[in-house]
This record gives sequence, structure tokens and C-alpha cells, in this order.
Amino acid sequence: MPKTKVNQSDRLRAETDGRRRRGLKARANVLNRAIDVASKNGLEGLTIGGLATDLDISKGNITILFGDKESLQLRTLDAAMDIFASKVVRPAMTERSPLKRLQKLCNLWFDSVEQRLFAGGCMLSAASNEYRARPGLIQDRIVHHRDGWHTLFANTIRAAIEEGELDGDVDVQQLVFELIAFQLAANTASLLGDRRFFLIARRTARARISMARATSKSPSSQRPKGR
Amino acid sequence: MPKTKVNQSDRLRAETDGRRRRGLKARANVLNRAIDVASKNGLEGLTIGGLATDLDISKGNITILFGDKESLQLRTLDAAMDIFASKVVRPAMTERSPLKRLQKLCNLWFDSVEQRLFAGGCMLSAASNEYRARPGLIQDRIVHHRDGWHTLFANTIRAAIEEGELDGDVDVQQLVFELIAFQLAANTASLLGDRRFFLIARRTARARISMARATSKSPSSQRPKGR
Repeated sequence: MPKTKVNQSDRLRAETDGRRRRGLKARANVLNRAIDVASKNGLEGLTIGGLATDLDISKGNITILFGDKESLQLRTLDAAMDIFASKVVRPAMTERSPLKRLQKLCNLWFDSVEQRLFAGGCMLSAASNEYRARPGLIQDRIVHHRDGWHTLFANTIRAAIEEGELDGDVDVQQLVFELIAFQLAANTASLLGDRRFFLIARRTARARISMARATSKSPSSQRPKGR
Repeated sequence: MPKTKVNQSDRLRAETDGRRRRGLKARANVLNRAIDVASKNGLEGLTIGGLATDLDISKGNITILFGDKESLQLRTLDAAMDIFASKVVRPAMTERSPLKRLQKLCNLWFDSVEQRLFAGGCMLSAASNEYRARPGLIQDRIVHHRDGWHTLFANTIRAAIEEGELDGDVDVQQLVFELIAFQLAANTASLLGDRRFFLIARRTARARISMARATSKSPSSQRPKGR
């Protein structure tokens, strides 16, 4: 190939790459800001106009990148869940032992709320409440993410039973229910400044998993009745 | 007193009473509508303009009755909690036995969510989530109502221990925490159409109280480990 042609095609590729990078960066900027707003004020608190003002870009640009308000809300929810997956789910899933995966999943979840991975705490809990009485695409997506979170717990618990780490007679759905309930209570408590309640939640979740352990034949690892 | 004077003062009193009645009725109408809107769309979803349109009255009238938006939001929250008290708290408190009061408090709470006393489920849970990251007068009032609900549970459990109905070694705060956690999980599940999860919550709350009973020395009334 003649030298000039190579240079021209390199330049074209560089320009295309540059545009793509700038597009991705613009999209990421909008999403980061959108997650922050939605976390504090809800997905309904998101407006294309508000984001445009905050980020000093045109409303038209946001519309080109995301479409209408509902699309922006769905993308914001998904992006928040992606961040959650990268900070909580994937690090926990690196553990070889299913029981350790379960324990780490819980620990990292409590960490994410305590350290405010999102300003408004657990994004799924916030969105579930916000769309509690508003059926539609957004509620459907929330239910989808909620199902995914419950299924992850159920599968991890089942794997721990199969590995002999948890008792064979553990009721999987019951354990999933209790761990999720402790999370919901912890989230609300943390956000309303009730640290005592948050710490009880964290301790109770840990104790509940210990109680289900196959090796928990010794009295010290069983939760005392009603204590 | 001459007859005409009596008639005049009667008429005046009747007019004043009529005005007062109409004022109270107008206030109740606005509050009922406000509770319905707030239950579905949140207290932030309340607008004086929206209520005026819904009820076909002037914005000025609503402002005279309630003041500004924040006052209307606070009054709406308090009015919802009054309804909750009349349907859940007071009927439970008529029981003589503290244990029965505790059980009825839980049962009526689950009923109130299942039967949608409010369209958007538990009002306190909804408001707690909505104002999770917005400090101010409304968040303070939510915390006040939340503290009241927790204290009611703690006091009822303590009374049941004193009466010898619950075990003397029951950890009051731990039991309060778990019952509240099961409620939060039940509320979200019910609103998102997850009836299975709701029923697990209801059953678990009942079992948790049974487990703490002073008479629960027989193995059948103890919750099986991790089952």
C-alpha cells in the first residue's frame, strides 16, 4: 500500500475512535450524574432538562444519547445495577466456596450501604418503593432485577448445601427471605441515621447463615432461642 | 330574653356551626385525596394545584386550609398515621394480654397491607424510602413516627415478658428488629406482586413470636434450625 493511503486511513480511524470515545465519555458522564440524582430523589426526580443544566450540555444531546425520559430512567437503573454488580456481586463470586460466596455477598452488601456506594442506599430497594404502585416498564425492570438478586441468593445457598457447607434440611426460600428482610431493614435504618438497628441487622444476617451451617452442631454457633 | 333575640342568636350559632362543619368536611376531603395521591406517588407527588383540579376547588382554599406544600405534606402524613392507628394500633391495644396485643398488632399490620388500607402499602415504609436522602422537617416527622412504631413493639414485648407470656431471656431489641424486618420485606413483596414472599413473611413473623413464648419448651413450637 502507498504511504499516503495508509496515513489517510489511520487518520480516519483515529477520528472515528476519537468520536466514539467522546460519545462513550459523554454517555458515562450523564449516567453518573443521573444515578446520583435518582439515588437521592428517585428515578422520577430525573429530568432531561435538569441533567442538561447540571452538566452544562444541551437537552438535545441527552435525547440523542438516551431517547425519552423513560429510556433514560431504565438506562440509569441498569447502570446503577451494573455498578452494584461490579462492587458486590462479582467480587463475592470469586470465592471458590459457595458458603464463602454467600457470606461475602452479604458482607459486601452491608458495606455498600454503610459506605454509600449510592447516596440513597440500596438502589433496588429505593426503586422498588418508588414504583410500588406504578405498573409499567420501569416496575417490570425492577421486578426483573429483584428476581435476579433473590435467585443469586437461592442458587448460592443451594450450591452450599450441595457442597455440604450448609445443612441439607435448610429451607432455601426461607433463608433467602430472611436475609433479604434483614437487608431491607438495614437499608432504611442506615439512611434514617439509626446505626444501632443497622448493626443488629448485620449481626443477625451473619448469625442466620452460621445457624444454617452443616457444622453447626456445637451450641455456640446456634442462635439462642429468642435472644 | 325577648323572642327575636333568641332566634337571632340561634341563627348565628347555626350559621357558625354550619361553617365549621363545612370547613371540617372540606379539610377531610382534601386530606383523603392527598393520602391517596401520596400513597401511590409519594408525598413529593402532592401539589396544591393537582389537588385543586382533582377536587374542583380553588388553590386559594387549599392554601387557607393547609398553608404551604410542606405543611400539607406533614398533615397528610399525620392523617395517614391517624388512620393507621385507628385500624391497626388501637384495635390491637384492646386485648388485655400483652402477647395477644403483640400478635394482633402483627396480624392487623399484615392485613392492612394485604387489603391495601393505603393503595401504596405501608405509608411509613413508603415515606421512609422517599425521604431517605432528604433531611428536613418531613424526614424528622417520619423518624418520629418510626420511633413510635418501634417503641410500641418494644413496650408490648416488655409487658409480655413481665406477664410471663414471653421468655425472660428474650432480647427485646432483637425481636423488635426481626418483626420490623419481616414487615418491610412483606410490604415490598406485596406491592410488587410477590405473594409467595409476602406469605413467608407473615408465617415467619408468627413463628418468631411463638419461638419467644415462655411456654415454648416443647420442640414443636421451636423454629427448626435453618428450616
